[in-house]
This record gives sequence, C-alpha cells and structure tokens, in this order.
Amino acid sequence: MKIHELETPALIVDLDRMEGNLQRMADYCHEHGLNLRPHTKTHKIPQLAQKQMDLGARGITVAKVGEAEVMSEEGLDDLLLAYPLFGDAKALRLGAVLERARITVSLDSEESLSWVARAADGKSIDVLVEIDVGMRRCGLKPGPAAVQLARLIDSTAGLRFEGLMFYPGHIYPDWEDSSRKLDQLNSDLQRQVEFFEKQKVPVHRVSGGSTPSAFYSHHIPALTEIRPGTYIFNDRHSLEWKTCSEDHCAASVVTTVVSRAVTGQAIIDGGSKTFSSDPLRVGKKGGFGLVKGFPEVQFVKMNEEHGYLKVPDEAKLEVGQTVQVIPNHICATVNMHDVIFGCRGEEVVESWIVKARGKIR
Amino acid sequence: MKIHELETPALIVDLDRMEGNLQRMADYCHEHGLNLRPHTKTHKIPQLAQKQMDLGARGITVAKVGEAEVMSEEGLDDLLLAYPLFGDAKALRLGAVLERARITVSLDSEESLSWVARAADGKSIDVLVEIDVGMRRCGLKPGPAAVQLARLIDSTAGLRFEGLMFYPGHIYPDWEDSSRKLDQLNSDLQRQVEFFEKQKVPVHRVSGGSTPSAFYSHHIPALTEIRPGTYIFNDRHSLEWKTCSEDHCAASVVTTVVSRAVTGQAIIDGGSKTFSSDPLRVGKKGGFGLVKGFPEVQFVKMNEEHGYLKVPDEAKLEVGQTVQVIPNHICATVNMHDVIFGCRGEEVVESWIVKARGKIR
Repeated sequence: MKIHELETPALIVDLDRMEGNLQRMADYCHEHGLNLRPHTKTHKIPQLAQKQMDLGARGITVAKVGEAEVMSEEGLDDLLLAYPLFGDAKALRLGAVLERARITVSLDSEESLSWVARAADGKSIDVLVEIDVGMRRCGLKPGPAAVQLARLIDSTAGLRFEGLMFYPGHIYPDWEDSSRKLDQLNSDLQRQVEFFEKQKVPVHRVSGGSTPSAFYSHHIPALTEIRPGTYIFNDRHSLEWKTCSEDHCAASVVTTVVSRAVTGQAIIDGGSKTFSSDPLRVGKKGGFGLVKGFPEVQFVKMNEEHGYLKVPDEAKLEVGQTVQVIPNHICATVNMHDVIFGCRGEEVVESWIVKARGKIR
Repeated sequence: MKIHELETPALIVDLDRMEGNLQRMADYCHEHGLNLRPHTKTHKIPQLAQKQMDLGARGITVAKVGEAEVMSEEGLDDLLLAYPLFGDAKALRLGAVLERARITVSLDSEESLSWVARAADGKSIDVLVEIDVGMRRCGLKPGPAAVQLARLIDSTAGLRFEGLMFYPGHIYPDWEDSSRKLDQLNSDLQRQVEFFEKQKVPVHRVSGGSTPSAFYSHHIPALTEIRPGTYIFNDRHSLEWKTCSEDHCAASVVTTVVSRAVTGQAIIDGGSKTFSSDPLRVGKKGGFGLVKGFPEVQFVKMNEEHGYLKVPDEAKLEVGQTVQVIPNHICATVNMHDVIFGCRGEEVVESWIVKARGKIR
C-alpha cells in the first residue's frame, strides 16, 4: 500500500528517519556516558519503547500510571514515573505494576511520598526528589528542603532515595539567554549536590530531560541520565528550535483537501482533533504545521475537523489532493490517533496501535 | 460514589444542568417551528444522542464517517454528515451505514458529489449544498454555482438535492458587529434562495447551526433546521459569549493539585492531554478554564499533563486537594476522555463511554 492510498487523515512515520533519530540520540548518550531513559509519552507505543531499549536505553519514562500499566504489560520492566503520585487508586495500581517492573518515582512533597509508600507496601521503589532549576513547574527550590525529603524517603519502608530529577523545559538551543540559563542550572544543581554532600546523603542519579536540551547535556556535568521524548519523531517545534533539520522530521499527517470553495484557501480534513491545537511557541511564524512540499502554503487556522490552508494563486492544490503536514507538537498529535503507520519511502509497511493513548490517569 | 472519590483527572457532567440545557433548546426549536439536529461531535456518546432524539430532535449531525458508524450502530437512524465526503474507503463505509440509517450529506464540489454517488450506489442519499454566508470555511459563494451543483445532484442516480447548509460560526451574541453579520447572512441566504426559485429548483431544507447563534435562529427566516452541539454541556466559551450563565455549564474536569512547590502556583494533574490546548477565543481574559469556587485562581498555562494555576496568597489550595475546572472548549475536552461520569449533586450515578472518541476518519 502506498502513502497516497491511506484513508485520511492518517499519521505516518518515515521509518528511515525515525531510526536515524533513535540512533543519533543513542550514540550521543553512549559517547558522553549518559543513561538514556526516553520519555514514551511522545509515542505511547510499547513496540517503539522496545526499539529504544534495544538501542541501549536504560529504561523508559512515563507520565501517568496508565502509561506505566500499558508499557509494563508489554514487557517494559524499568520505568520512571516522572510525575507525583496522588490517591489511593493510583497507589494500588502502581503497586500492581511493581509486580512486573522496577519502578522509580519522582516527587516534591511529603504528601506524594505517603502515596508512594502505600504503592510500595513494603516492596522496593526508588525515589527521585524533583527540584526546580528554572522551569518553575514542579520541584523544590534548591536547598535543604530536598535533603530533608530525601531523609524521609530513606526512613520509609521499601523506599530508597536515589537522587534528583529536574525538567529543563525552559532551555532551548537557539534562545539568546540559553547559555545564561544553562549557567544558572549548573550553579543550582551544584549547590543542591553540595547540600547533600554536606549532610552525607549520597546522590546516585541526576535525571534531566527534554529534546531541545538533549544535545547540550554534556554541558551539565552533574547529569547521569536524560529523558528526551520528542526526538524519536521531531516536529515543527524541533525544527524552529534548530534541534533538527527537516530531514529529521519523521512524522507527518496525511490529509485530503476537501474544499477549495473559498478563494485563496484550501480546507484539509484535519483540524484540532487530528493535530491538537497546540500553537507554535517559538518565533513569530505562527500556524499549525508545515505543509511538506508547499513552502508557499501556510496552515493558518483550524477548527475541530477543518484545517485552513492559505494558498497563493500559483500553488497547485486541488480538491481531492492529499498533502502531508508536519505538526507543531508531535506528542499532542500522536495522542489524537488510535494508530500510526510506518513507511519506507512511499510504501506503508507497518502500523502500531497507540496503546497508551488517552491514559490520563 | 462521591465526586471527590473519583480518580483524577475525570470529566464529570452535572445531569440536572445537562437536562436543563437539552430541554431549553428543544423548547426553543419547538416554539419557533425549527427542526433540531444536534451536532453529536460535542459528546460523541450514542446514549446522549438518543436523549436528544427523545426530546424531539429530528435527527443528529456528525462530522466524520467514523462518527456516523458509531451512532448508527447504536440505533441512531437519521444522520446528517455535515462534511464533504472524499475517497473510496469513506464512500464504501458510508454505503454500509446507509444500510441502517437515512443519510444526508453536505458538499460544495462536484468531486465530493462523485464520492457521495459512489456511497449511494443507487440507493437514496439526500444532499445539501453548502454555501458560505460569512464564515469563509467551506461552502460556495451565494450565486448560480449552487444551483448548477443542485441540478447535477438531482441528475445523479440515488441522490436528491434537499436544500442548503451553512455554518454561522462567525456569529456570536455579544459581538458588536453580530447584527450587521446577521443582516448580511439573511441577505446572502435570500439571494441564494431567489436564484433557486428563478431556476425552479425547490429548496426543501435550510440547515444552520452553532450554539452561540442558536437562540438567534428565529431572526433568520429562511432556516428550517439548526445543528448546535455545545449547548448540551456549554463551556467557558459559551459563558464568555454570554450564550449561557455559569449555572448552565454542565461539564467540568475534576483534577488534583499535585505540586505546590513553586510559590504562588499550584500544579493540577490535567494539561493539554486532558483539556485540549484550545485557547479562549473571546475577550482578553485568556487562560485555559474556570476554576470552580476559586474566582481568585487563574488557570494560566499548561503542558501535556500539567495545568498551572496562579494562586494568590489568600487562596486555600493544598497539595492533594481536588478542584473542578470548566474547560474553554468542551468538544475538544470530551475528545480527550475515554469515559464521562454523570452526577446528581455530589453523587456519581452513571458513566458513558465516549464511543466516537478519536473517530477522525
């Protein structure tokens, strides 16, 4: 089956590009002695997580217990739940996952710690204390509080303080102030590690992350592990952040032009329920995707099932024609699809069910 | 089970409010002699479509063939596919739906017409010609082209030209220029109908739509049918457009505060994968939802699984606490959930599978 024969809208992945992306990150981590623990929220597909493991990943990262359930059911047995655990049901569910996988959990509060203890129920869970190195999302401010929480972890049956986690989601390669932010991050991390050393609490692991900052990881000496997700496919953000070139964008959505009734405009059969409505958060270009092969066409607006392309007179874009669009944010787009198709050149050669799709709990 | 006992994030519906919303729209249509054909893309749940039918709806509206399949499987037997049909697979699939339901399709091109003919395969499909009355999405400019397309429809085996469809998605009650837009719409419609009269092609049906414009429908004399969707639940947009009051907002997402580590901020366990990242498209308030019972708290930012609440010092919002959030755009939010819970007061009394979730094809 050829790509243009797929029923649209359909999310496709160029397997050569994807394999190149996976290899490049694996090589980088190997070269710099970093453990790679890919965030599987990007693809939500156990077979792709397994590919990442086969290329040397130390384990995988998940955001929600539902993702941990899906991944562990399919044999992924070393999971970092990079999200604070809350509630009885989630504790019980994580306890069930613990029967078949090694689990690390991150947290920043005693309240979440008590739920992790409930999940462990005497069995062994590793715990990372999340610290905030500038993202201002979750995480304790670097200082003595993290050490206090680490001690509390170590004094809890089954739990072991393993180290620190942070998310450098505020650092992008082409931002002017990224080197200042990187210096600040290193100084925060160093300060935090010194607090631990002074109190003689050993830090075995420091887990960073994010695709935009991934290839900067060797400038963060404290790091032992990174958790990039997007790198497997890349997207328009990766491109605009100059994390990759267009040749590294492995995923795109095949759509059909369903109306050209309005002058200067083509409507495609994918909108926010196909792409997500994530805006482009970098630069001033705006829009909702890159229309492959049509540099003069802009994806300017969307409704739920309609994408609006602004089409100059000279562009040949006819009703019924298919066009491929690289989405702004591939993690959000994947989550809109039940299935993804893998392609070699123009040939559709395999498909995967997005098994952890919609696992928000 | 009580609402606060639900595992979070969870999408809940206040059944009293929902029933009030359904009754109000049914009464309005009855009073003004309009057929109601609710757009089921909002809830994607056959049981709720059936409730709408039980209250007198003439049939239902769907956006994609996949939605038509799900709805017809559950006994909904009068469907308007308000989306141009393209491609062999979709034509065959719609043909299968036609075995168990009456189908109307809208379109604005000969190309789409040829696929509808393929779907009908000699059996009967009603066709609406879509015209553009100011939204500038799909639809022919009012004029002779629509009549020409209607003639082509009538000359195609199985197909019958039934009337006109438009989407008044550019008309909102509280916009200053809405009465000018309404006048323009009426004049466009009138002009189009006259073209048909002059050519002696009868127009049996004129189908409008949208929740924000629904209660203005009696100001559009040509209308015979409306297709509102959002009105069943309402959302922050309905509220900001003054289409409803907060008492009419039936749906909200129950979330848990999972981190308060950063001063002045609470992180909830729902982000763009729980709410969608649809921005507020009206006014200057911005943000991603209304935090019920906390008027001083703003939902200012989201990542995939993190919602950022800006919390003033005086607000009592503790880690582990649950908060309910009315989303910006409920149609997009519903599509992120596998299941919705129905509540009477604080009691969770039923649940529905969002059976047409993710049916983008």
